[in-house]
Amino acid sequence: MAFKSYMGLAMRAAREAGQRGETPVGAVLIDPKGGRLVAEAGNRVRELSDPTAHAEILAIRAACAAAGSPRLPGLDLWVTLEPCAMCAAAIAASRIARVYYAAPDPKSGGVEQGARIFSQSQSHHTPEVYGGIEAAEAAQLLQDFFAALR
Amino acid sequence: MAFKSYMGLAMRAAREAGQRGETPVGAVLIDPKGGRLVAEAGNRVRELSDPTAHAEILAIRAACAAAGSPRLPGLDLWVTLEPCAMCAAAIAASRIARVYYAAPDPKSGGVEQGARIFSQSQSHHTPEVYGGIEAAEAAQLLQDFFAALR
Repeated sequence: MAFKSYMGLAMRAAREAGQRGETPVGAVLIDPKGGRLVAEAGNRVRELSDPTAHAEILAIRAACAAAGSPRLPGLDLWVTLEPCAMCAAAIAASRIARVYYAAPDPKSGGVEQGARIFSQSQSHHTPEVYGGIEAAEAAQLLQDFFAALR
Repeated sequence: MAFKSYMGLAMRAAREAGQRGETPVGAVLIDPKGGRLVAEAGNRVRELSDPTAHAEILAIRAACAAAGSPRLPGLDLWVTLEPCAMCAAAIAASRIARVYYAAPDPKSGGVEQGARIFSQSQSHHTPEVYGGIEAAEAAQLLQDFFAALR
């Protein structure tokens, strides 16, 4: 699959999260060797009453459980929103190789603003990071969701 | 119970984690009104193959599941080590009122060093933070654990 298709899968998970009444953020983990979809998740904070149930965390936990390891070296994460500090630190802990995200998140992001997790010496792994992929579509999805809540 | 006793409960959870071969860190959540123990957890990263299974995250998830809410306003977290950035961000997300920790963690901490999560404008809640409580005992536990691994 092409780059755009991986983000498309994350976007689908984001839309499904929105339909469940969750903040519409989605993530997929891909093994770039062969392009296998390893895990897919959307936000489930409300459904699970779990403040850690962000899309990235759920995808990481599912992939780690399947792998029988707390580390996912070589895998790529595609996510529709810039990860928050919690998710960025979990990404570093799980040794994910590359992070591709869509919309930046000035309000809660922890990658290119605020905590800037991957730039800290307390982060023991630094993935490659590519932001702004299909950003307009992801941002629109979030904007529509929050507009509908008002 | 006195302050020292709450940290003693966290320390017990830390020792039990060490006995399971996990990094010996423990945490408890206490409702300061009445002093009820709401949740107790030690690190289970290896056992669960889950990089997010730090003591703090497990305690938060258990307490939120029991409360049926992703937020824990009014609760206090006692933890034997300075929380990492991931845990600090989860603490902020869950609106925990106070964080009491034992040993500082220059290598991986995210509260008083590095990401300094609670000082970032992307952190939407700032708990009261008290560090250095029973720090020597917690640090010794970690030191002994890592010395035994070598």
